Amino acid sequence: MLNDLQNIAKDIDSLLLNDPFPETVKPDYLRSAVRDYPVRGGKRLRPALVIWCCELLGGRREEALYPAAAAEVYHNWTLVHDDIIDQDVTRRGKPACHITLQEELNRFQLSPTDAARSGRDFAILAGDLQQGWATDLILRSAEHGVTAEKILLILRKLEQYANVELISGEALDVEFSLRNVESVPETEVREMIYLKTGALLRFCAETGAVIAGGTSDEIDHLGRFAAAAGMAFQLRDDYLGIFGDFSSFGKAIGGDLREKKATLLLSKSIAMASESEKNTLLSLLGKEEYSAEDLKIVREIMQKAGDAVRQEAQNLADESKQILMSFPDSPARARLLALVDYLIDRQI
Amino acid sequence: MLNDLQNIAKDIDSLLLNDPFPETVKPDYLRSAVRDYPVRGGKRLRPALVIWCCELLGGRREEALYPAAAAEVYHNWTLVHDDIIDQDVTRRGKPACHITLQEELNRFQLSPTDAARSGRDFAILAGDLQQGWATDLILRSAEHGVTAEKILLILRKLEQYANVELISGEALDVEFSLRNVESVPETEVREMIYLKTGALLRFCAETGAVIAGGTSDEIDHLGRFAAAAGMAFQLRDDYLGIFGDFSSFGKAIGGDLREKKATLLLSKSIAMASESEKNTLLSLLGKEEYSAEDLKIVREIMQKAGDAVRQEAQNLADESKQILMSFPDSPARARLLALVDYLIDRQI
Repeated sequence: MLNDLQNIAKDIDSLLLNDPFPETVKPDYLRSAVRDYPVRGGKRLRPALVIWCCELLGGRREEALYPAAAAEVYHNWTLVHDDIIDQDVTRRGKPACHITLQEELNRFQLSPTDAARSGRDFAILAGDLQQGWATDLILRSAEHGVTAEKILLILRKLEQYANVELISGEALDVEFSLRNVESVPETEVREMIYLKTGALLRFCAETGAVIAGGTSDEIDHLGRFAAAAGMAFQLRDDYLGIFGDFSSFGKAIGGDLREKKATLLLSKSIAMASESEKNTLLSLLGKEEYSAEDLKIVREIMQKAGDAVRQEAQNLADESKQILMSFPDSPARARLLALVDYLIDRQI
Repeated sequence: MLNDLQNIAKDIDSLLLNDPFPETVKPDYLRSAVRDYPVRGGKRLRPALVIWCCELLGGRREEALYPAAAAEVYHNWTLVHDDIIDQDVTRRGKPACHITLQEELNRFQLSPTDAARSGRDFAILAGDLQQGWATDLILRSAEHGVTAEKILLILRKLEQYANVELISGEALDVEFSLRNVESVPETEVREMIYLKTGALLRFCAETGAVIAGGTSDEIDHLGRFAAAAGMAFQLRDDYLGIFGDFSSFGKAIGGDLREKKATLLLSKSIAMASESEKNTLLSLLGKEEYSAEDLKIVREIMQKAGDAVRQEAQNLADESKQILMSFPDSPARARLLALVDYLIDRQI
């Protein structure tokens, strides 16, 4: 699975690096910004999902390649706008898009305030251009054997899942950080997670299925498989954010607490805690740093909720694998099954 | 022409007011923001251009209606992001999108700084959703008789003219305001005007032609007609911004000077002025208010350039009408000819 994932990453890297779409963008630093995130690499899980779901139903990989690249570009424009909104300064170990642009704009001798604002303004436009680029990549799959009717169906799904649902998920995530995070009930957190993480994966899986000419049942099954796997991944990620091992998790443990992020783990913990535990937990939200002692207290309070979330992640992973098992055995099925394990089991 | 323009406006208003696309957007205030600008009315010149160019080539109005509405939504999402970037607080006499959202977000008892930032963040997402909405409207023209192949062609044009070109025009406009405006040469201003104003109109005209099944020559001719008419309108607008009569122009005379806006009129004036006139003109840029005396001085310095710009606008209008005259006489042709006159002759 990992070997083929690397092959797909190589194909996507090369396609995006050479794609003509950004070439006529002006000015030049905006053109570079449009290509920047999409060619920064990454595991290319979304393209793999498009391609393997296509192959699972007997479709041809070359027909799936452009829509696969489109899913990656779509994901990346949402990151460009997210990074502005979350005021993140880095992305995959490099400066965030708006920071890179801010530095480029120093050529105009701006004040620091104006440079920051203009960097942000051009990053808004970079993301806007990338949304168009993603659509254009899907349109160009017509030159690689995908029929016009299939392309229309894929684009309808793009606007439903990747535009309305994904952006609604991002908006809810922002809203939760403006509300008292402890007031956000589990059901709303769960919906936000599906929208923010599951919806684009559903788009990927269904797109692969459409390209392969799948029946509407097959398309729907693969969509549910991907949404469940995505939810499982996100719940596991939230769990590891508190209970993980720093050296293998890679991110700082407790980061979600510091950012008062609405996770299912936090909602469940608050719902299950005694009044005094709840007050202790709330008093520990939003700290600059977490000592070993802080984390010990948090983990004790969150233990029961943590077990429940881990179990729910496992159930979702099982559910997603069960859906896959209803398809005949094939190399693509084996890869998709391994992908679910990879998403869930890593770093434990 | 004006009667039919009103009919089109009514059809577009009703389509956009009832369109289901925004209905599943969450949270509710973001959903309202997505529908807000598109239903604020306006003359609906872009939809009219789609519809009349379609009818000019014998196409059916009902096939053109959804793409016509899409052009309007596309225009509006660029306005939402422009208003953030230009820090405009009103749009068509009502609060700008980010200001409306800022007020909505007061429900979370935010500090004024946080409310302003969050209003802007949600407005970024509102524009992002509207870009998807525009695409979805074009896709749904399949349900009204437009073939899948035509829709693919229209969407390719959307990403070329309305995405890459229009957004590049917006980016150049922002850049010019960061550079010393007097250092921007005419050729660059001219390019920016085509990209920012002409490209979307070209999209509208070519879309109407595609729906009608026009030949590639016809499509190209109508695209050039619309781009020329758009340039003519913009040059005329810039001219009136200095030489117009306040009571009939509607906008404050001198606004472009106050904002140091890169107009062809300003570039030409600087290029044609003597050293001392140039210095006087530059000293008058960026003032808070312009007295009658200021305007008199400005108009004297700009007189020759103004005549040249007015003449260029007239030439472009003539060129656009000449292209139309190469098509057989029809009610649609008469309306398009009247539209050019309307764009150019108003408020003189």
